[in-house]
Amino acid sequence: MGKLATRSQYTTIPFESDKVVAVETRYDVLGIGNALVDVLSREDDGLIEEMGLERGAATMVESARAHAVYRRLGPGTEVSGGSAANTVAGVASFGGTPAYIGKVAADQLGGVFRHDLRAQGVAFDTRAADETEPTGRCLVIVSPDAQRTMCTHLGVAQRLGPEDVDPDVVAAARITYVEGFLWDEPSAKRAITRAFEVASRNSRKVALSLSDPFCVDRHREEFLTLIEEVDILFANEAEITSLFDTDFESAADEAAARCEFAALTRGAQGSLIRTNGSVFEIDAVGVDEVVDTTGAGDLYAAGVLWGLARGLGPRTCGELGAIAAAEVISHLGARPMVPLGELARQLTGD
Amino acid sequence: MGKLATRSQYTTIPFESDKVVAVETRYDVLGIGNALVDVLSREDDGLIEEMGLERGAATMVESARAHAVYRRLGPGTEVSGGSAANTVAGVASFGGTPAYIGKVAADQLGGVFRHDLRAQGVAFDTRAADETEPTGRCLVIVSPDAQRTMCTHLGVAQRLGPEDVDPDVVAAARITYVEGFLWDEPSAKRAITRAFEVASRNSRKVALSLSDPFCVDRHREEFLTLIEEVDILFANEAEITSLFDTDFESAADEAAARCEFAALTRGAQGSLIRTNGSVFEIDAVGVDEVVDTTGAGDLYAAGVLWGLARGLGPRTCGELGAIAAAEVISHLGARPMVPLGELARQLTGD
Repeated sequence: MGKLATRSQYTTIPFESDKVVAVETRYDVLGIGNALVDVLSREDDGLIEEMGLERGAATMVESARAHAVYRRLGPGTEVSGGSAANTVAGVASFGGTPAYIGKVAADQLGGVFRHDLRAQGVAFDTRAADETEPTGRCLVIVSPDAQRTMCTHLGVAQRLGPEDVDPDVVAAARITYVEGFLWDEPSAKRAITRAFEVASRNSRKVALSLSDPFCVDRHREEFLTLIEEVDILFANEAEITSLFDTDFESAADEAAARCEFAALTRGAQGSLIRTNGSVFEIDAVGVDEVVDTTGAGDLYAAGVLWGLARGLGPRTCGELGAIAAAEVISHLGARPMVPLGELARQLTGD
Repeated sequence: MGKLATRSQYTTIPFESDKVVAVETRYDVLGIGNALVDVLSREDDGLIEEMGLERGAATMVESARAHAVYRRLGPGTEVSGGSAANTVAGVASFGGTPAYIGKVAADQLGGVFRHDLRAQGVAFDTRAADETEPTGRCLVIVSPDAQRTMCTHLGVAQRLGPEDVDPDVVAAARITYVEGFLWDEPSAKRAITRAFEVASRNSRKVALSLSDPFCVDRHREEFLTLIEEVDILFANEAEITSLFDTDFESAADEAAARCEFAALTRGAQGSLIRTNGSVFEIDAVGVDEVVDTTGAGDLYAAGVLWGLARGLGPRTCGELGAIAAAEVISHLGARPMVPLGELARQLTGD
């Protein structure tokens, strides 16, 4: 696939240089992922242990266990979530024109998910599934230190298949971004394969987030093959070191050797971008109070992807990611609550 | 009905003095109201006008209009709401033992409402309605100045009827508290009549909130009759002046002449309690930032009712109300996010 968009000094190859694209670029980022509504609840860490969940991770559970965990949780707040959906919501908040593909049911939470994404300005037309299963839910336990632990019941989200991937949408998107969580379901994997093929045929970029260290554990071999096809890779420290089974520096080298653009996040220590032989260290943006870290990685990806789609340089892209992550960890919920475009203007001077 | 609970210097009649109660007091407060899930969205005031809503008020709309308004709203946050339900959630957060009667459907939002109330510690056993209508929703538009404007689609909440009023629960509750919004539905009105009869037969207290100035407008004559039966009255300035069609001081006199205990709120100016010939002026509790005024009146009532049920004096009751209101306006959503009991201990010295 082609070279990355950039206006920076670090590479002079324009984004559209090698395109053989017949269709118009209507979307800057297309996200494909598990469509989930988050149920946020603040709890002490004792409950996480008692329920057999892994603190800071995302555990996939079947319906009965999801209900059992929900019964133990305190009063909740429901907010639309889903990793890639959070990312495209962030891109829209920056002022971009994203699209999304993901599966909800024709039920109340499905209606909430669809409303919120469209109201944010994301094109979302995946057909709702029949109501044999409900819309997926992610129980998000927010600890006193703002760490989030997830217990996900995919519900109908796992019915996403290749038939849901509209090739016209993929062809019209500058970057197609998928979450690693999709690898848990064979039909979703076929959907991704189809999307990548269409993107490749149209010289579009493809991006992947590794999503979760346990997800990496489950799919290490496949991910190692897959990232050879990926232009833009997102991972946090736990994920990238798990993937290459080595220390952070070596893992970053491995990622940089395989992907044109690797963005590696390290929480409060900021992020590292490796692209075209260059290294960019990006500081995290400080916040008054870290309320809830849910969505930090998703929103970091939003800033980076929006920057790349606009042809901004790697450092600016990373800084946009840091701005978006800082906004989302300063409140409950994984979607931006203020227009990110306004925060970005201070950085890009537009 | 009997005299109010008190440990203050202002009256020496104990709460239980004239009771002829056969059953145990299991609940301190029973709330009866419209069971609603709030959909909170931050919007500019222009949208409120454009949608024909009354800023600061609660407008009842049918399903089609609710959908039309929802389509215009930005991304939302779903949190369990409903005026009396917020109040009993507050009583539970203080450490009380409340119960609730209200109607949800056997759908996702009904499940969310039931979970949240029970998880907070409220006894809630009203049978879910058949799914001919959905669980009620209240679209809450939060303006930049934190004022909230509501657009309510009652859905199945309006099917609450006398058959839902379990007389054992009413008889076991020290105070039965109802919201004025119920007067919009004839069957809910019959439910209230039944609850008041049972309470009266068991020498329990009954409390009423006037809910909304437009609600008062719609039911002025009935409310004027009703408050003669009410021991404890809650109203804000707009509601009480509307009810008696006079200025605040005169309206407060009218309320005090009819109810044993009248608690009248005035936003940032605090509240006024009139009881047994005495007047108590209670200051509002300051907050760093007023984020969302949704639930301020409901939580004020929670503090007062919890105090009354415990036999605390009028000033302490008012101060507990002020504490609870301050907590709920400092974040998005109408239910407490920190245990109110901890805040109360600083005041009551328990």
